[in-house]
Amino acid sequence: MRALKIVGVRQVAVRERLDPRPAAGEVVVQMKAAAICGSDLHPYRSMPATNQGRPMGHEFLGIVEDTGAQVTGLKRGDLVLSPFTYADNTCFWCRSGVQTSCPHGGRYGFGGVDGGQGEAVRVPQAPGTLVKLPVPADSALLPSLMTLTDVFCTGHHAAVTAQVGSGVSVAVIGDGAVGLCAVLAARRLGAEPIILMGRHADRTELGAGFGATDIVLASGEEGVEEVRKLTGGHGADAVLECVGSMQTLTTSFGAVRDGGVISRVGVPSYTDGPIGMDMIMRNITLTGGVDPARHYIGGILADVLEGRIEPGRVFDRTVGLDGVPDGYRAMAGRQSLKVLIIP
Amino acid sequence: MRALKIVGVRQVAVRERLDPRPAAGEVVVQMKAAAICGSDLHPYRSMPATNQGRPMGHEFLGIVEDTGAQVTGLKRGDLVLSPFTYADNTCFWCRSGVQTSCPHGGRYGFGGVDGGQGEAVRVPQAPGTLVKLPVPADSALLPSLMTLTDVFCTGHHAAVTAQVGSGVSVAVIGDGAVGLCAVLAARRLGAEPIILMGRHADRTELGAGFGATDIVLASGEEGVEEVRKLTGGHGADAVLECVGSMQTLTTSFGAVRDGGVISRVGVPSYTDGPIGMDMIMRNITLTGGVDPARHYIGGILADVLEGRIEPGRVFDRTVGLDGVPDGYRAMAGRQSLKVLIIP
Repeated sequence: MRALKIVGVRQVAVRERLDPRPAAGEVVVQMKAAAICGSDLHPYRSMPATNQGRPMGHEFLGIVEDTGAQVTGLKRGDLVLSPFTYADNTCFWCRSGVQTSCPHGGRYGFGGVDGGQGEAVRVPQAPGTLVKLPVPADSALLPSLMTLTDVFCTGHHAAVTAQVGSGVSVAVIGDGAVGLCAVLAARRLGAEPIILMGRHADRTELGAGFGATDIVLASGEEGVEEVRKLTGGHGADAVLECVGSMQTLTTSFGAVRDGGVISRVGVPSYTDGPIGMDMIMRNITLTGGVDPARHYIGGILADVLEGRIEPGRVFDRTVGLDGVPDGYRAMAGRQSLKVLIIP
Repeated sequence: MRALKIVGVRQVAVRERLDPRPAAGEVVVQMKAAAICGSDLHPYRSMPATNQGRPMGHEFLGIVEDTGAQVTGLKRGDLVLSPFTYADNTCFWCRSGVQTSCPHGGRYGFGGVDGGQGEAVRVPQAPGTLVKLPVPADSALLPSLMTLTDVFCTGHHAAVTAQVGSGVSVAVIGDGAVGLCAVLAARRLGAEPIILMGRHADRTELGAGFGATDIVLASGEEGVEEVRKLTGGHGADAVLECVGSMQTLTTSFGAVRDGGVISRVGVPSYTDGPIGMDMIMRNITLTGGVDPARHYIGGILADVLEGRIEPGRVFDRTVGLDGVPDGYRAMAGRQSLKVLIIP
């Protein structure tokens, strides 16, 4: 089969890869839709060159093609969606809602496991990992369903861990696909106002469409000042930090109110941060983390199926498998917000 | 009147101070009980010498002696308790449960306001600050009621912000009075197991009396290992960090389970801490802060009045006003866990 592989900085290509075969507890999924994630850009920008390379991608859905022994509840022909990590969904960690910490789980593209950006994907822990979709494989809902693999659930995770609910004031930092999904997730949970801090008017426009009540294009202290003005001088109850830089973390501490919550879902580019006396005196909570998407998909699915939310609007470009390298270039160069792959 | 004053490192003494008179919105309280707080030891150990000095103490209760204009709901003769900061209890911040951030509030002993360790205390924002106690001034409940000014509510704040509830596994780090109160607060909220990490067998014994199910005397990695063993190998759902050092913060990250919460109520001796990729990948929440005691007192009072909890057992020494300097020495030298002052 053909699948995307990365072998070094900006070196991604579609290559032949052995057709996957399911071992016990596994299934092979024929990919029907996949996506490029902002986090795919980290190795794209920085991975040291290797001969062997590794498969890329962790956002996909498709049709069950083959099932290994001991697979129950899934059969050939089922349309299924995978969260961006696999997990048994039965252990202590999964039952605690942190499927990302499952000791039987792992990441696509590592340890011999396929990536999501290929014609087929072998899925370990298939019964615990995959979610059946009650739509045909050519459904117009596929883009929005795709976002449940990662990006929308990640925005939702930011909102949930920040205790966003009815009437909670929210500032979202970052107008990438995760930030925009965080806006939509916050609106779905009843937040108001929802202030989107971004730097790209074309992206914040979609944020307004997703429910942002206010857009702040300024950053740093000036941006903080605007958030404070928009929240009665107090700062936001919840800041959803969807970037991961020290600058956006500093902005988060400036934009949050005393007693409020900062939730981080961006990959942090720092190892240490300011958690001393000021954070203590202001009673600020720091939460978030890598999104245990499997924990959330079931609770969000109906809203997508019934059209109440349309997170698939984050996709502004669709490519075939051969177009994936172009998709990486477009996302890395910010010509594209998020790329959908339809093989 | 006579009141404690600090003028430099380990230099505390009882001195004459002008009799306080209440301005509008204020009352003067005749102190009936006060206490030395662990945080009083910070200036005791490190305050640069000054000529003027400053009044000490912020934990007290007493009888309303005089009321200023515009004071409603309080009258001469009422027995009242003050949280360790004063606040209007009506503004946005107070209504949000962070009375410690009230812009009309402040700290005892600063800005011309009396400290709590004196014969009388002028209380700003008296109607918002003081809580009436329905017991006589010689009640045997006074020691336990005293703990609601700060230490028990601080332990409770650690537990509440860490989302401690029925069946939640808790590790408390620190066997000082706050740590022991955190044990009692966790038990009151239904936690189990409650693992107390301490270093002084005489103190952890009281922790066991307060409801700790397990005592871990080891610290560092060895202590972490023991906590993990006691929690099925997972780590604790909630770690209540009641010390404030980088070492105990590191222990907290080791002892908490993925997806769990670390709540800090100790004064941090560091400015930056490890909040990078590991915290993100493990979905750890960092919360806590300075305790808004006024927010909690009303909800806890009945349990003290009806004898369901007896946090006053943290007091292991009682002194008169003249004995307060000895009390400081005893607490600083760890001969005493916590000192009660009965004038």
